[in-house]
Amino acid sequence: MEPSSGSRDAGPAVTPVAAVLPAGGSGERLGGATPKQFCAVQGRPLVSYTVRAMERISWISNIIVVVSPENIETMKSIIEKYGHKRVVIVKGGITRHRSIFNGLKVFVENEFSNHLLQKPEVVIIHDAVRPFVEEDILSKVVMAAKEYGAAGAIRPLVSTVIASAADGCLDHSLERARYRASEMPQAFLFDIIYEAYQQCTDYDLDYGTECLHLALKYCKTNAKLVEGTADLWKVTYKRDLYAAESIIKDNLSQQVCVIADVKEAVAQIGFLLHETLKSQQIEAVSISLSKNDSRLQNIFSGQCYNFVCINDKKYAIQETQQLVDMLEKSDLPLLYPVVLISMHLDISENISFSIGIEELTRIKKFAGEMKKKNILVYGLLIQYKDHLVLQKIVNSAAALIMALIKDRNPELIGQLLVA
Amino acid sequence: MEPSSGSRDAGPAVTPVAAVLPAGGSGERLGGATPKQFCAVQGRPLVSYTVRAMERISWISNIIVVVSPENIETMKSIIEKYGHKRVVIVKGGITRHRSIFNGLKVFVENEFSNHLLQKPEVVIIHDAVRPFVEEDILSKVVMAAKEYGAAGAIRPLVSTVIASAADGCLDHSLERARYRASEMPQAFLFDIIYEAYQQCTDYDLDYGTECLHLALKYCKTNAKLVEGTADLWKVTYKRDLYAAESIIKDNLSQQVCVIADVKEAVAQIGFLLHETLKSQQIEAVSISLSKNDSRLQNIFSGQCYNFVCINDKKYAIQETQQLVDMLEKSDLPLLYPVVLISMHLDISENISFSIGIEELTRIKKFAGEMKKKNILVYGLLIQYKDHLVLQKIVNSAAALIMALIKDRNPELIGQLLVA
Repeated sequence: MEPSSGSRDAGPAVTPVAAVLPAGGSGERLGGATPKQFCAVQGRPLVSYTVRAMERISWISNIIVVVSPENIETMKSIIEKYGHKRVVIVKGGITRHRSIFNGLKVFVENEFSNHLLQKPEVVIIHDAVRPFVEEDILSKVVMAAKEYGAAGAIRPLVSTVIASAADGCLDHSLERARYRASEMPQAFLFDIIYEAYQQCTDYDLDYGTECLHLALKYCKTNAKLVEGTADLWKVTYKRDLYAAESIIKDNLSQQVCVIADVKEAVAQIGFLLHETLKSQQIEAVSISLSKNDSRLQNIFSGQCYNFVCINDKKYAIQETQQLVDMLEKSDLPLLYPVVLISMHLDISENISFSIGIEELTRIKKFAGEMKKKNILVYGLLIQYKDHLVLQKIVNSAAALIMALIKDRNPELIGQLLVA
Repeated sequence: MEPSSGSRDAGPAVTPVAAVLPAGGSGERLGGATPKQFCAVQGRPLVSYTVRAMERISWISNIIVVVSPENIETMKSIIEKYGHKRVVIVKGGITRHRSIFNGLKVFVENEFSNHLLQKPEVVIIHDAVRPFVEEDILSKVVMAAKEYGAAGAIRPLVSTVIASAADGCLDHSLERARYRASEMPQAFLFDIIYEAYQQCTDYDLDYGTECLHLALKYCKTNAKLVEGTADLWKVTYKRDLYAAESIIKDNLSQQVCVIADVKEAVAQIGFLLHETLKSQQIEAVSISLSKNDSRLQNIFSGQCYNFVCINDKKYAIQETQQLVDMLEKSDLPLLYPVVLISMHLDISENISFSIGIEELTRIKKFAGEMKKKNILVYGLLIQYKDHLVLQKIVNSAAALIMALIKDRNPELIGQLLVA
């Protein structure tokens, strides 16, 4: 789901690079009390996604997150909870530019941290509310900054831009093709952007928003503009949080791990399910639990957050518990809720097959416990007597599995669905 | 959920007003084969939402939807399926401006429709991919157009706008505060915008995008700019479709109708559920099915799309079927999928209570039939022996009900959940 991190000898590797993430905004436009960078997406604050997007790139040495004083403790706990590395928290100023300037100072002055960080050759500036930034564009702006002194991602304008006259009427409209929206990330030779901030006026610091403009005005550096992709968008409104949530759920549902033991009936269902998921462009991996401890760990650290555990015992929680134990042992921070579907196979000849309320209660209780560990457990029952309908039932099971995985609905945990 | 439509004597009522919706775009930016205006949101094409937003306003007399030739049949079937009124379909041109011009011509020339429509004093131009437009802003731009000749909604810029030089480097950045994004709706005195289109060059028709610009250039009309709200945004990228889907689901889940008969246990649960939903800011209405035929119709035509049917018979499909019959009899077009939760109350003393697979199969089959009518049926079981835990169980039921309503997941229909 996440692209593998760049190796140190790829892209702008040998250049010392740091990143500054201004995360001090108040999020007024979102209309909520929580600043947007701290809003939860799949239970996790947005800023953590952006930090993760930087952190997975090995050639970024330090990640400076600039937050307003009242959010320093929140930010600390986020870093601890999600195991982020190479992050330094810096106290922001009252405007965006002042916050970025504070972020840069940790490489030069002792004011904001206990020890000076090694000054990078190039510094990336990126918004905490643009979580979907990819290594490719980061690498491009860094390379361009090395060559031109400054660089920034741009996008075509979505709307026509117009200037209004003093009377609130249209003065003129800009020709859309000639202009671009300035987005993030941007990158600068450290000395250029730092000098620009030292030179600039209080008016710039208080009312300006555009770093490229400062580099141009105070260092005569014309930034190279780099065409970015649509996923550089900024989470601004509530609808953007909805979109972010859907995109993340979409990404999370690309891969499913099917766990079946070697018993014939179970293995057969496991195989059919695997093939059915694959035919729907889902990346399915199959393992048998008992023997593949290390393989499961690899699957999990490879960012698979969905597991289907097939067993032929009615509501056997042991297998599921075993899987949970292994996830916990792996000691990886749960960046996303894990979906764990306990799939029960019933091939008894018993026509009057039925489910007792006690059993349902037991699954619900277990799921409630797991929820505290950020693991969403759902039950799924497959019952068949006739082999001819097996594929049909597996199709139905696959559809339910994908619905559960795509929704990741915490309210439905512990329910037993029937394929 | 939908604001009630304006009456003819409100706002710009006495002025004859028509609306032109250009819906000819190819939706390249969305990255899919289907143009974005025809993408399904909750099963219904986006353009239908925008048409509905216009249609519910009584002072808009005609709604001209301009589509590319290959989509005329699609558009016809959308209008028929969702029962849209006052809509005329017009064949679009190869660019946005040519399409809008075609739309205007139906009031003046015989070229595009069998009969001339009455020429409006003011014409609204609005994108088919901005479905969340409210009466308030439509009224404002129409009033401003009457006074100034032209008017358009604007929004603050989300990103800084920059101009690039020929070498792909930054030339200058615009001061964000001085500029605005030009959005839709716009409105014009019909004669002004029609003359502007008649006067304008082929270059304008082929490469221009901004109607306000044409009114200024060819009719010396400086449009009044009206500050719009955030929900005027345009569905441009796939993430916008995700956002639209979430917003619509959110809107749909504001109101729930609880249907219970008068039997003591059922009525009690109905009352508790009603109160619990209300305490969660859900608008709950309660009726008893047998006596309130007309009231149910009113609730449904009042845009309530969620019903919880409580009964004390195990998996009684009759009540649910009765509700379905009434919905069908109402003959209202189903603009959204209806969620129908059949809630079964079990207060038997039987400890070894259980659910048979045949019963589960029966619910699933029924739900499958209902799905074809755009009704999503889910089962919900409440079982209690101890009155002390009743509120706790109702809370749990309410949480499941809201999860089902918010998700409207068609894959989970026919499942029996347990509170």
